[in-house]
Amino acid sequence: MQLDPNAIADYNQSQLEGHQRKLSYWTQEVATAEPIIRKLIDFQIAIPSWALGTGGTRFGRFAGGGEPRSLEEKMADVGLLHALNQASGAISLHIPWDIPTDYDAIKGLAASYSLAFDAVNSNTFQDQPEQELSYKFGSLQHVDAAVRQQAIDHNIDVIRHGEALGSKALTVWLSDGSCFPGQLNFRKAFGRTLDSLGEIYAALPEDWKLFVEYKAFEPNFYSMTVGDWGSSFLYASKLGPKAYTLVDLGHHLPNANIEQIVSILLNEGKLGGFHFNDSKYGDDDLTAGSIKPYQLFLIFNELVDGMDARGMNHATSLGWMIDASHNVKDPLEDLLQSVEAIQLAYAQALLVDRQALEEAREANDVAQAQEILQDAFRTDVRPLVAEARRRAGGALQPLALYRQLNVRQQLIGERGAKTIATGL
Amino acid sequence: MQLDPNAIADYNQSQLEGHQRKLSYWTQEVATAEPIIRKLIDFQIAIPSWALGTGGTRFGRFAGGGEPRSLEEKMADVGLLHALNQASGAISLHIPWDIPTDYDAIKGLAASYSLAFDAVNSNTFQDQPEQELSYKFGSLQHVDAAVRQQAIDHNIDVIRHGEALGSKALTVWLSDGSCFPGQLNFRKAFGRTLDSLGEIYAALPEDWKLFVEYKAFEPNFYSMTVGDWGSSFLYASKLGPKAYTLVDLGHHLPNANIEQIVSILLNEGKLGGFHFNDSKYGDDDLTAGSIKPYQLFLIFNELVDGMDARGMNHATSLGWMIDASHNVKDPLEDLLQSVEAIQLAYAQALLVDRQALEEAREANDVAQAQEILQDAFRTDVRPLVAEARRRAGGALQPLALYRQLNVRQQLIGERGAKTIATGL
Amino acid sequence: MQLDPNAIADYNQSQLEGHQRKLSYWTQEVATAEPIIRKLIDFQIAIPSWALGTGGTRFGRFAGGGEPRSLEEKMADVGLLHALNQASGAISLHIPWDIPTDYDAIKGLAASYSLAFDAVNSNTFQDQPEQELSYKFGSLQHVDAAVRQQAIDHNIDVIRHGEALGSKALTVWLSDGSCFPGQLNFRKAFGRTLDSLGEIYAALPEDWKLFVEYKAFEPNFYSMTVGDWGSSFLYASKLGPKAYTLVDLGHHLPNANIEQIVSILLNEGKLGGFHFNDSKYGDDDLTAGSIKPYQLFLIFNELVDGMDARGMNHATSLGWMIDASHNVKDPLEDLLQSVEAIQLAYAQALLVDRQALEEAREANDVAQAQEILQDAFRTDVRPLVAEARRRAGGALQPLALYRQLNVRQQLIGERGAKTIATGL
Amino acid sequence: MQLDPNAIADYNQSQLEGHQRKLSYWTQEVATAEPIIRKLIDFQIAIPSWALGTGGTRFGRFAGGGEPRSLEEKMADVGLLHALNQASGAISLHIPWDIPTDYDAIKGLAASYSLAFDAVNSNTFQDQPEQELSYKFGSLQHVDAAVRQQAIDHNIDVIRHGEALGSKALTVWLSDGSCFPGQLNFRKAFGRTLDSLGEIYAALPEDWKLFVEYKAFEPNFYSMTVGDWGSSFLYASKLGPKAYTLVDLGHHLPNANIEQIVSILLNEGKLGGFHFNDSKYGDDDLTAGSIKPYQLFLIFNELVDGMDARGMNHATSLGWMIDASHNVKDPLEDLLQSVEAIQLAYAQALLVDRQALEEAREANDVAQAQEILQDAFRTDVRPLVAEARRRAGGALQPLALYRQLNVRQQLIGERGAKTIATGL
Repeated sequence: MQLDPNAIADYNQSQLEGHQRKLSYWTQEVATAEPIIRKLIDFQIAIPSWALGTGGTRFGRFAGGGEPRSLEEKMADVGLLHALNQASGAISLHIPWDIPTDYDAIKGLAASYSLAFDAVNSNTFQDQPEQELSYKFGSLQHVDAAVRQQAIDHNIDVIRHGEALGSKALTVWLSDGSCFPGQLNFRKAFGRTLDSLGEIYAALPEDWKLFVEYKAFEPNFYSMTVGDWGSSFLYASKLGPKAYTLVDLGHHLPNANIEQIVSILLNEGKLGGFHFNDSKYGDDDLTAGSIKPYQLFLIFNELVDGMDARGMNHATSLGWMIDASHNVKDPLEDLLQSVEAIQLAYAQALLVDRQALEEAREANDVAQAQEILQDAFRTDVRPLVAEARRRAGGALQPLALYRQLNVRQQLIGERGAKTIATGL
Repeated sequence: MQLDPNAIADYNQSQLEGHQRKLSYWTQEVATAEPIIRKLIDFQIAIPSWALGTGGTRFGRFAGGGEPRSLEEKMADVGLLHALNQASGAISLHIPWDIPTDYDAIKGLAASYSLAFDAVNSNTFQDQPEQELSYKFGSLQHVDAAVRQQAIDHNIDVIRHGEALGSKALTVWLSDGSCFPGQLNFRKAFGRTLDSLGEIYAALPEDWKLFVEYKAFEPNFYSMTVGDWGSSFLYASKLGPKAYTLVDLGHHLPNANIEQIVSILLNEGKLGGFHFNDSKYGDDDLTAGSIKPYQLFLIFNELVDGMDARGMNHATSLGWMIDASHNVKDPLEDLLQSVEAIQLAYAQALLVDRQALEEAREANDVAQAQEILQDAFRTDVRPLVAEARRRAGGALQPLALYRQLNVRQQLIGERGAKTIATGL
Repeated sequence: MQLDPNAIADYNQSQLEGHQRKLSYWTQEVATAEPIIRKLIDFQIAIPSWALGTGGTRFGRFAGGGEPRSLEEKMADVGLLHALNQASGAISLHIPWDIPTDYDAIKGLAASYSLAFDAVNSNTFQDQPEQELSYKFGSLQHVDAAVRQQAIDHNIDVIRHGEALGSKALTVWLSDGSCFPGQLNFRKAFGRTLDSLGEIYAALPEDWKLFVEYKAFEPNFYSMTVGDWGSSFLYASKLGPKAYTLVDLGHHLPNANIEQIVSILLNEGKLGGFHFNDSKYGDDDLTAGSIKPYQLFLIFNELVDGMDARGMNHATSLGWMIDASHNVKDPLEDLLQSVEAIQLAYAQALLVDRQALEEAREANDVAQAQEILQDAFRTDVRPLVAEARRRAGGALQPLALYRQLNVRQQLIGERGAKTIATGL
Repeated sequence: MQLDPNAIADYNQSQLEGHQRKLSYWTQEVATAEPIIRKLIDFQIAIPSWALGTGGTRFGRFAGGGEPRSLEEKMADVGLLHALNQASGAISLHIPWDIPTDYDAIKGLAASYSLAFDAVNSNTFQDQPEQELSYKFGSLQHVDAAVRQQAIDHNIDVIRHGEALGSKALTVWLSDGSCFPGQLNFRKAFGRTLDSLGEIYAALPEDWKLFVEYKAFEPNFYSMTVGDWGSSFLYASKLGPKAYTLVDLGHHLPNANIEQIVSILLNEGKLGGFHFNDSKYGDDDLTAGSIKPYQLFLIFNELVDGMDARGMNHATSLGWMIDASHNVKDPLEDLLQSVEAIQLAYAQALLVDRQALEEAREANDVAQAQEILQDAFRTDVRPLVAEARRRAGGALQPLALYRQLNVRQQLIGERGAKTIATGL
């Protein structure tokens, strides 16, 4: 579907008075509003191609309707999101599902939606129909060199697709691990995985990054071969300067202090990027900010502090991506909610009075340090985020407009009620 | 496939000398060997029909071969397990996948394998192709009375199938819950679920039990409407004397003291039965005893103590069933391992010197109480369990014989390498 | 110390312009401001006498200064908090530390501070110097009837002290449990504890409540005899209509859905009250709202919904109390922060559009239900809470005024730098 | 007290027949018995001086009797343990509590008990009475350079004490961290801690090791500055080749795979040693093997495999120490139980058929790999451990003999019933 070119402008006009009243109150009270708005405009969060359809669990999947049936339709969906919020200006592809048949056409399509190609993602956690050897017992860790080679070749193949489209990073998430004590020689599995990653690393273009994602458990339920930030850091350090750790918020043991991990990795120069989502129990892949919004804010608080300390560009130095699964919501609505929550956390982190915070810390004034963070978090920054969207050409309230325009109904009309997005 | 009638006897003969040497040492040292062996012979663990094929996760499924393609083949598989270990003498069916076309034929088949029909299981966590209304937002909890009625009718239908086969219990596991704060009115969801269960309860035959299974999370990732033993107990108490709580070992929050829960439920007369498995992180559905064998022993320690205190028959008063998922092992091998682990835990629990334990407790002699439990757990009871199998007509080492007979290869020959068990 | 009677008025005058600007924006945008302010004025949170001094861990305690040395000084501290925030109008005493020598004098003192006496708390988790029998192996669960009787008598004694002061509830938190498998016969421990509680229940005045608090772990590290809401509910149900479950936010296993527990208990008419605090790992006893403010809001969301559904008075139907430990902050500052966080969560819960929420739920509109809750949570309700304080005679910003008045320095001057509050 | 020199020999004689019957069965069945016995004889586990008295929690402490009142009495207690089990031949001192007044006398005393001095432990998690600056807000991480210097000096002082006694390692466990979001600048705290450790490292004698212990939480409840193995590894790597990570089994988040961590650290050459204990919820400091004995075995399985792969001496390459807290048991009984459990796990790990295990792994034979580990774990190796003790001059059943000799009663007689061990 195509958004009516005037839809956003008309909608914003209808909301403008209320918005300006809230915003004017804001700009009156807070001196830093303007630079925050400018940073928000620059800040883009990539949408993964697999998050555009309804997700599921091992217990089943309850399909929605109007899901994208092709790479082109996935790009149309992200283009639509980006038109609405002007903050989703990149798509992250998943190979083998998103292999273009015509690279130039796809690049042209991306340009028409103002979309960049974010990190490309390989897949060795499933067997594909045409695949020669099985990943049942792992891929880069496999005891059989032929299976490892197949997985290495696949990753290099993914790099090549990404190069052709203008991506600059490969994300490697490995489900490799074991389900039972005894199954794996941890030492050897580590060594084989490192060697395999080394071959992939060697095939990286000069200006690319390799993101090594870690995960504590699932789908292996005893050990994961890249199981925590410490392991990922070890791999990335041994691989070289182009290798980094990628943090998925749902990939930790219960009660982990993720913001501290983020701070350490950033300080070591080894933080590569994020998969945003939220969770209560495991890798629940829920909407960002829907369960623990304060944690999301605290993570951004470390990011802003750490990136500024290293003179890093907020928008471009790290990879920002959503990784979520939408079991009970319209995927596009869910993604709009996630992006909004991420923007709010970022805006609140920008609002923190860092000088006062450091002074409180130097004085061991714990209550005051808490007050400073809470003051930022308790502030209603929604008008700022809406203003950033408005200035960038997006909708003041993307979700409201999405509903007003009956987007999902139109998509169902175009694509059918029983479609299943590829790659799920 | 059919086991060669002499295969077990021949195998046992070949192992007999070593077995008897171990056993004689045992019976020489421990006075209680004989009654333990007799109790082990009586103790049967039901196999669920869905555990006979390769399981998977939301990230994929790596098929094995020779999986059962029909109810008849599932029964053959359980029959084979039972022939080997003489401890798997019941099958637990899952409707709609295991609906018999000819009840008498199925009952005859069961008799030929010496199998009973354990609790029947309904399914409202997936939509079936022909299903009118969707369970996407729950079944017995659903806001729409028509969906609830459909789920109620399905459960009553399951009871009818079970009646025709000789089952005596219905297990209701509900995936009902919510994925996001706000989604559900907990109060109303509880009330609707209770009302729905009430209608199912009303349809129970006089001599049946209703097992209300609880689970902390998954597939819903914010709340589960029957989320813990307290909730299940509430439902079961309000429903009436035929309703009981069913404990699945993998359905708890981290660090839960399951054995204490078991003790409380047993003491309240509301423990109905078990789904055995093991896990490290969540509902990992691993082989029983593969991760926390001491916990399994402690659970049986409470069971033996509590059942004896209430004069309950160990073998028949509660429902004993495995619920596991085999992602990387041959399902039949995995089930043989699970049954063995359960038998070992039961045997060790029977070995506990209960009088000495109570004396230590009365004296607050904590170190001694610990010694008494550890003494039982550290004892190698494998000869006892093997002897129980031998006397009952099973194999001394079922897994070893299973491999020696190349059972899986034969099943692949009969059924094919690419089969997928129904109901997965 | 005494607050200068004009201190608050002067301070508020100095802050008034800014406050009114924020408030007027608020009342302009939100129609429900006025009734929320009125409910906030009525809502009082009791302060426990043990939270007025510096807390510690088993690894040590780093004392602050100016801690209260007597019941009178504890009341002065709570009186000061209440003067500042007009929301801490009750004190919860801990026996044996807070036994008055002159009841009338203490009641007069309370009246002078406008303080009520909230639930009284017994203590059987420590041995007192003069105590005859030890609670090393439990109190109400103890195998020795004489120890149980001592603990029962102590609880009845606590009731008598409470009666004399005008309390209306007894909170029983038991550390009873076991540290090792085998130590305890769970069944018998449950029975003994129930019998002991029954004797305490029998001694309750007609208009009193008994709060049975549960806790998952610590200081016993294998089992707790009142370990979860299900257990507490069982005890309270068996005891009778005056017995209720008390929820301490830090007393759960990791990832527990506390708001659902609250909803169930409320719906069963068995929720008695709260101990507010926050935590990341266990019973960390941190400042309310400092770690998971959204969870605190979700709990209040259930409370408001459930209390309204049963026609319960928000302010008086349940017991509201803080239970925290201040290891690195000034206790009074910490308590001011906790009360503020609780008020904010309550105000946000009052702000939820319940009719719209129910409509979204009835329509299975999950995204909308989330939006409705987030809309309330993202709203900056601090002006409302400040206004409620102002109207009630408290300070617009209690913590800021506390610091401006140098309260802690004055207390150190009066009481000394090395005091240790009794009961720690 | 002094053990009657003949007590052990007499006791063993009384038990010999039963022991030899069990052992002969064993040596008949298992070819590897003899080398396992020899390795067990060499394997010594250090006892920390703080574990000889009754422990407690923040909720209180229930004293036992006969606790050691001085360094000399602590050494006598460890000497007694070692006489009984011949496996506790080292003591680990805690400074400032265990500072000798006469080094030569203490060394002579140690020699008389055949005790070595294991790693020495510094203490900066409490303030000592005479201490100038407080560690309330950390020690090596502190914002104030003077506090850091005080903590550095203390650690160097501890090294000097250890040198004088013949220790070869310093264990640094830091409680440094934060209780609230905002309190700490993670980056700067890491840097300050690293710098401080660097100064301590610089003061290490040539042949010493520095053990950097990590802990996930407690006593700080938001962040710990050495919070996980990844952090500890980072510090140790930056410090240099004499710095290692120390693993305390209770210092992890829920569900952590400790054995995998052990394997990775060992493989990186950065595993320094262990603090053995067991736990269900947090740092519960329970008797080793009392909660998760299979996990303890799996850890030893990795240790044996990894040390053999690197040609390391099992007994001397790593630091083996218990760290436990005895709240409800006689400390000496608890320690005897812990040492026994560790020896059993080690013996079972030695029993694993490593060649068969590697073959199963190479064949992806998961069921067989599990069988191989379980076969070792299910074997009753108690006769082997008893035989190792007997040959080394210890008692066949140390705990039984300890009780038979009424050791605790004698200690109470000598030291009094109300003693409190120093350093608790």
